[in-house]
Amino acid sequence: MTIIDVINKKRLNMELSREEIEFAVNGYVDGTVLDYQMSSLLMAIVLNGMTTRETIDLTDVMLNSGDRIDLSSIDGIVVDKHSTGGVGDKVTLVLAPLLASLGIKIAKMSGKGLGHTGGTIDKLESIPGFDTKISLDKFIKQVNDINIAIVGQTGNLVPADKKIYALRDVTGTVESIPLIASSVMSKKIASGADIIIIDVKVGSGALMKTLESARELSNMLVKIGEYYKKPTVCIITNMDEPLGYAVGNSLEVIEAINTLKGNGPSDLLEVVITLCSIIIGAVKKISNTEAKELLFKQLNNGEAYKKFEQLVISQGGNLDLLTTSNKVFSIKSDKAGYINKIDALKLGEIAKKIGAGRNTLDDEIDYGVGIVLNKKVGDYVEVNDELLKVYLNEKDISMGEIISCYKIEDERKEPNDLILDIIK
Amino acid sequence: MTIIDVINKKRLNMELSREEIEFAVNGYVDGTVLDYQMSSLLMAIVLNGMTTRETIDLTDVMLNSGDRIDLSSIDGIVVDKHSTGGVGDKVTLVLAPLLASLGIKIAKMSGKGLGHTGGTIDKLESIPGFDTKISLDKFIKQVNDINIAIVGQTGNLVPADKKIYALRDVTGTVESIPLIASSVMSKKIASGADIIIIDVKVGSGALMKTLESARELSNMLVKIGEYYKKPTVCIITNMDEPLGYAVGNSLEVIEAINTLKGNGPSDLLEVVITLCSIIIGAVKKISNTEAKELLFKQLNNGEAYKKFEQLVISQGGNLDLLTTSNKVFSIKSDKAGYINKIDALKLGEIAKKIGAGRNTLDDEIDYGVGIVLNKKVGDYVEVNDELLKVYLNEKDISMGEIISCYKIEDERKEPNDLILDIIK
Repeated sequence: MTIIDVINKKRLNMELSREEIEFAVNGYVDGTVLDYQMSSLLMAIVLNGMTTRETIDLTDVMLNSGDRIDLSSIDGIVVDKHSTGGVGDKVTLVLAPLLASLGIKIAKMSGKGLGHTGGTIDKLESIPGFDTKISLDKFIKQVNDINIAIVGQTGNLVPADKKIYALRDVTGTVESIPLIASSVMSKKIASGADIIIIDVKVGSGALMKTLESARELSNMLVKIGEYYKKPTVCIITNMDEPLGYAVGNSLEVIEAINTLKGNGPSDLLEVVITLCSIIIGAVKKISNTEAKELLFKQLNNGEAYKKFEQLVISQGGNLDLLTTSNKVFSIKSDKAGYINKIDALKLGEIAKKIGAGRNTLDDEIDYGVGIVLNKKVGDYVEVNDELLKVYLNEKDISMGEIISCYKIEDERKEPNDLILDIIK
Repeated sequence: MTIIDVINKKRLNMELSREEIEFAVNGYVDGTVLDYQMSSLLMAIVLNGMTTRETIDLTDVMLNSGDRIDLSSIDGIVVDKHSTGGVGDKVTLVLAPLLASLGIKIAKMSGKGLGHTGGTIDKLESIPGFDTKISLDKFIKQVNDINIAIVGQTGNLVPADKKIYALRDVTGTVESIPLIASSVMSKKIASGADIIIIDVKVGSGALMKTLESARELSNMLVKIGEYYKKPTVCIITNMDEPLGYAVGNSLEVIEAINTLKGNGPSDLLEVVITLCSIIIGAVKKISNTEAKELLFKQLNNGEAYKKFEQLVISQGGNLDLLTTSNKVFSIKSDKAGYINKIDALKLGEIAKKIGAGRNTLDDEIDYGVGIVLNKKVGDYVEVNDELLKVYLNEKDISMGEIISCYKIEDERKEPNDLILDIIK
């Protein structure tokens, strides 16, 4: 077998065997398969697809390329959560302490953000002192002690995915259901949790552009979870506009704190409560209505926020030192009408440009910069009403570029539903 | 524009603009587009195709990446000939002197063989002393003096194709009509001839596996020729079995000499006469029947062979020193019946293995080794009748492997037609 045989087979739209997938992936990790051969194979997979069997084999081969975290010394059910990446997506910052405050174990390993979407690790690192690099022993002990720990990826987890993901990023081969599903699930399975929750974003600011493709991805994620006997729940949520009002690291932490204190924006709250109620309902064997009541109680009685504080203190962070940049500009509307669109992708790119995100993993993040919306899709604005505030530091941005993210029209279009489907 | 934008556009099956094709190809030549990005784009082109407009632009951008040979100082009509590559394909060795003996100018630049098909340059270099690296001035002078010269590619012709072709070879992206057509035609146009004849091989031993795809490729080649106002004729010929009886460099030269002396195998003769009669008919404004008569006359009166001798002497070769390897093994049939198939691809691979071809451009060729068939498809064999002779030198081969190229059955299947179509 040569890698050219494997590429040719996929080019001719034939199903690859387990051995062929192993040959390609392991060869790529050990350097006998070269970058330009892997990228050609990846494009053939993007365009010709993979069967469920191939996708599970790909996941398994990638999983076996590195270590797996053993969380068996944690008592109770351990939950991990993933998002396919959205703008203003601070769901984990709220969901994790909220569930932990109800006794669910949250052992979360999280990646750094790349491109126009931020990463949970970056957001937490905007809290001065917060250490996302604690040892595995300390990670497990903390989950046993206070039910929650969030760290950057540790150990040699799924090196095949690291190498393939970096290549996909620079070869136009990101958008593929089998490649996304195997990348997400190999990392989740390697991280050792019992239950996996995945927020599949759909819309202009997301990897999945249509509800149909988001459903297809979700079904594949759930099937891979079934194969490993790890219950997996996917919630498909709209990413046409940013989630909540804040985009940028410390700005999003502040919004998450407000939400944990019971003062969250309705869209963020809807996603968090929907996801948490599925988990709580299943674990505590209570109805969805009862689960939701319990969750709101935890937000309103301060328990959820207290758990977040415990998490921050336990990992060395100091919330009193959390700051945002102090060069703040208010952007006003130049016309009156209904906001029918806020381009999440473009706004995410703008946030990245001013320093809130990175183009390459070596870029430094400016934690205090970002954007805070004042109005959302469906709202009415008069001329000179504030659309948003921009928090700047060293980098500048053109006002026209920001305004071009908005579509303001005379007639109001009904905004799309936020939660489009739940697949489990 | 970034290369990822260009890749994504082709991945989404959209038509690339001239500027986008220039950005990708020129970027690849100057090193700003990387191998793994080009291979990803190439696979997207293989699977999503290119329009005629895109293919012509790709040809033109590749053509403009290097020099063009100026043959205007040659008097008369200059013909160039190309084959998409077959096993035992010595058509050029016969066609070129035959046409030159009738006053047609043959200024041929030829590549080295790679994979299971041999190259004209390698075959000529099996004649001791034959110099395929003469200067451009000497090349042009020789065509003016004796009507014919055949050299290896000289100068900096189509560097983009050189680099892309080498990448395609190792990334499973060879089989694509727009990529093959632009590669062939950019080199032919750069080589400066007035009329281009292309032998498009179809069958198990060829790049094009079906008549339909061979027709599609031929139509594209003719369209590109029209764009440059260079009349282009494609002949689609069967490559289910080797052409003629000999496979291997000096063995094929010997078969070509016999053909030039009027003693050629009927299939080789059919391809040569068909191609030459189209050219002669057009140039001399005579009927096809008259053209064929003229051609057979040249083979039978010794003029065609005399022209070949002139070519060899003029480029320093000595036909008296031409040798074949002297370890010769006769392979006999282990059953009686009709030969219904001789696998050209496998036989070509075997010839390559014993030293007649190369895997990489650095491999040395063993000119005297090869295979000479004794029977062809459609022939009847008794048990112990000779199927072929193998000429070996340093490398060995298993007899079973050779026998497995033959399908010998009780009932005779009618062999496929040799010439399947002519497109001009």
